[in-house]
Amino acid sequence: MDFATSVLTATDPAQLTASEAAALIRSRQLSCEELVRACLARIDAREAAVRAWLWLDPAHVIRRARELDKLPPKGPLHGLPFGVKDIIDTADFPTTHNSPIYDGMQVGRDAACVGVVRGSGALILGKTDTVEFASGGRKALTRNPYNPAHTPGGSSSGSGAAVGDFQVPLAFGTQTGGSHIRPASFNGIYGHKPSWNVVSREGVRMSSMTLDTVGWYGRSVDDLILVGTAFRIPEDKTPVTVKGLRVGLCRSPAWHAIEPAGELALATAAKRLADAGAIVEDLELPEPFNRLHDAHADIVNAEGRASFLPEYINAYDILAPDLKAKVENARGTTPEKLLASYALADRCRPLFDALFGPALDVILTPSAPGEAPEGLHTTGNAIFNSMWTLLHVPTVGIPCCFGARGLPVGVTLAGPQLSDARLLGIAKALAPVIDTDPKAGLDRLWG
Amino acid sequence: MDFATSVLTATDPAQLTASEAAALIRSRQLSCEELVRACLARIDAREAAVRAWLWLDPAHVIRRARELDKLPPKGPLHGLPFGVKDIIDTADFPTTHNSPIYDGMQVGRDAACVGVVRGSGALILGKTDTVEFASGGRKALTRNPYNPAHTPGGSSSGSGAAVGDFQVPLAFGTQTGGSHIRPASFNGIYGHKPSWNVVSREGVRMSSMTLDTVGWYGRSVDDLILVGTAFRIPEDKTPVTVKGLRVGLCRSPAWHAIEPAGELALATAAKRLADAGAIVEDLELPEPFNRLHDAHADIVNAEGRASFLPEYINAYDILAPDLKAKVENARGTTPEKLLASYALADRCRPLFDALFGPALDVILTPSAPGEAPEGLHTTGNAIFNSMWTLLHVPTVGIPCCFGARGLPVGVTLAGPQLSDARLLGIAKALAPVIDTDPKAGLDRLWG
Repeated sequence: MDFATSVLTATDPAQLTASEAAALIRSRQLSCEELVRACLARIDAREAAVRAWLWLDPAHVIRRARELDKLPPKGPLHGLPFGVKDIIDTADFPTTHNSPIYDGMQVGRDAACVGVVRGSGALILGKTDTVEFASGGRKALTRNPYNPAHTPGGSSSGSGAAVGDFQVPLAFGTQTGGSHIRPASFNGIYGHKPSWNVVSREGVRMSSMTLDTVGWYGRSVDDLILVGTAFRIPEDKTPVTVKGLRVGLCRSPAWHAIEPAGELALATAAKRLADAGAIVEDLELPEPFNRLHDAHADIVNAEGRASFLPEYINAYDILAPDLKAKVENARGTTPEKLLASYALADRCRPLFDALFGPALDVILTPSAPGEAPEGLHTTGNAIFNSMWTLLHVPTVGIPCCFGARGLPVGVTLAGPQLSDARLLGIAKALAPVIDTDPKAGLDRLWG
Repeated sequence: MDFATSVLTATDPAQLTASEAAALIRSRQLSCEELVRACLARIDAREAAVRAWLWLDPAHVIRRARELDKLPPKGPLHGLPFGVKDIIDTADFPTTHNSPIYDGMQVGRDAACVGVVRGSGALILGKTDTVEFASGGRKALTRNPYNPAHTPGGSSSGSGAAVGDFQVPLAFGTQTGGSHIRPASFNGIYGHKPSWNVVSREGVRMSSMTLDTVGWYGRSVDDLILVGTAFRIPEDKTPVTVKGLRVGLCRSPAWHAIEPAGELALATAAKRLADAGAIVEDLELPEPFNRLHDAHADIVNAEGRASFLPEYINAYDILAPDLKAKVENARGTTPEKLLASYALADRCRPLFDALFGPALDVILTPSAPGEAPEGLHTTGNAIFNSMWTLLHVPTVGIPCCFGARGLPVGVTLAGPQLSDARLLGIAKALAPVIDTDPKAGLDRLWG
């Protein structure tokens, strides 16, 4: 019995990672229809509890899966179901931004990122719930698959929970503060937030021109690399030896916000890496980095002014108060303050990139303060993510361990701007060291 | 006979500036329907020669005008016809980007900028022709209204020509290199390219995240200010005295490309300002500014890679070769080179802003090398515009004179980042000095 058959007989196809499923589809041991039916069955069993999806049309996607089964492979993602955060346009489903202002809106044109994965063979499975406009207003109804009393994080709530809960192998999220990597941590999955501008934001609801970034979730680094190849982030096959690798342990200027589970995850990852021979050393960022979190807040608020002006004018009565506050510049950010915040980020970016070289290969840093908070009134704190978003650097979220409440906690790897391929290569080498129990999610959620 | 009546009896409503028409509509001396019918009649008479429009539905816009006539004023632009460059989404018309890939595409959702002006009462008149994706590939079919053998400039070809030819009082253009201010010069009209991020680019086809900017055309500074108020750029009523105003005459690092007509326009504007008492002094930009034009080329090419990847994957056979070249990085821009180009711009922006103060109120600089070139195979050279786009500073294009071939030539005013309101206030004071014959276009094109 070969690997593929053993995998298939042992597991429900919904449990496969995207890369495992892709290999089976390529060798015709698994059909696109079988895979999507397995995902739909998992959703059917779990949607009432997890509520990850805003739009799902099973008959439609089964038809599309059959169509894909008739075609030669279109690309690296052939037949892989892909969830799409509902601030991202899709030709065949509505895009509501989880806002009553856009209830039922269907634009009939794919966002650039959707066009890329669809053109690479992916099967767009449906739209996932999100914080309204990925920015404020309404929260998603989605619950943490590990404990429905807890948030899955946000704003990419539905995408994070759906991938974590084995409902779909891949999904798009976005990050303006910490909307992508934080849910990766809270749902026990892998996530890649690419460098700024590596992925087009065409057709993705804008909140902040300087910060909005499209990313994707998977259940292994191989999954992240696979999606990356569709975006022309080539797989970097340069060998990475963990022994001797220089890892900068960056508690970050946000360390005051750390909780026991976050501290545990960072210490655990650091110890596992050191035990495997990596040279893990504390990394203190220079002084100006301490002010990046405030600069981020200035920028996201000031740029929201233009972003939400159309709704302010055309749908004032149903626009959320926190989004109205952005248009009204309730924070009172002056042009001088905004320009100083831009200038600070502009100054820090090359400083950050220059840290890397013989003395530093990769940074290890928290993904979130700790476990997912209880309740759906919050999606957690983005304080450990916003600096990386503003620096425009690539980050990869990796699951690490579980906290005292039984919820997953991850850590983040970061590299210099535009080093996405290299960072994913390093992440591939480090993931087995950090994520020592990759079947933990399956055991806990499927069992 | 009051002003309004005298204006109306003397002129076809299509000849009115937007601000003149707005005043008459407010006082119920002109109906929205009368105004739009006058525009449609002008288009009817001229479209075969000028070919500014890609989509026009006269019956639809007349119905909407009647609807506006029944409503109380919705905002500062109530009833004003507005042309929209066809890379900008409109709910009620197709958006094709002048690309065969998007032939007939209609998304049913307004771009943010369209939502703002529609919500402020504007009547979206139709879609104007453009260079494909405002980036490469096919040119517009539009001709220069002053001489159909010449280009109207581009990529905002149809918007520039339609406003210049009195077919519509206002229109949106966009600028990534010189696509907005150059056509303003070639068509003898006013144009405002706002500071980066003052106007949301949601729903505007992306080419370069760092550079793309939405702007608008009108036939007076008052028109530009009027549209600005809809975008919450408040009218700056601080008095501006031309006498003693410090004007920096900036030939710019692109001066080697100047032609006689461009030199004439800049010298004429400078002399008129000096004669009116302004203190016009040569302004030499510091050394790093000489490299901004190359940095611009690196950025626009490198960022085009992500922007056109979806079409490269999904419509390879009909994607234009120059856009394929961007995806393939034919220019060979390395990540290091791209980051150095970003860093150069980041460094120059505060340097530029710091020039302003007691010693400098505004910069006067060319809008284009000279008159609009002959032929439709080119839209002219963006070399005098690209630096300002990359610096993210506001610019205002003002008509100045006519060249030897009888085509209009304008000049550009520039100010520091986010000084849009102040720059428009200065432009309002300087325009009567620079543009001494504001009826020249009417005499030449209508007569």
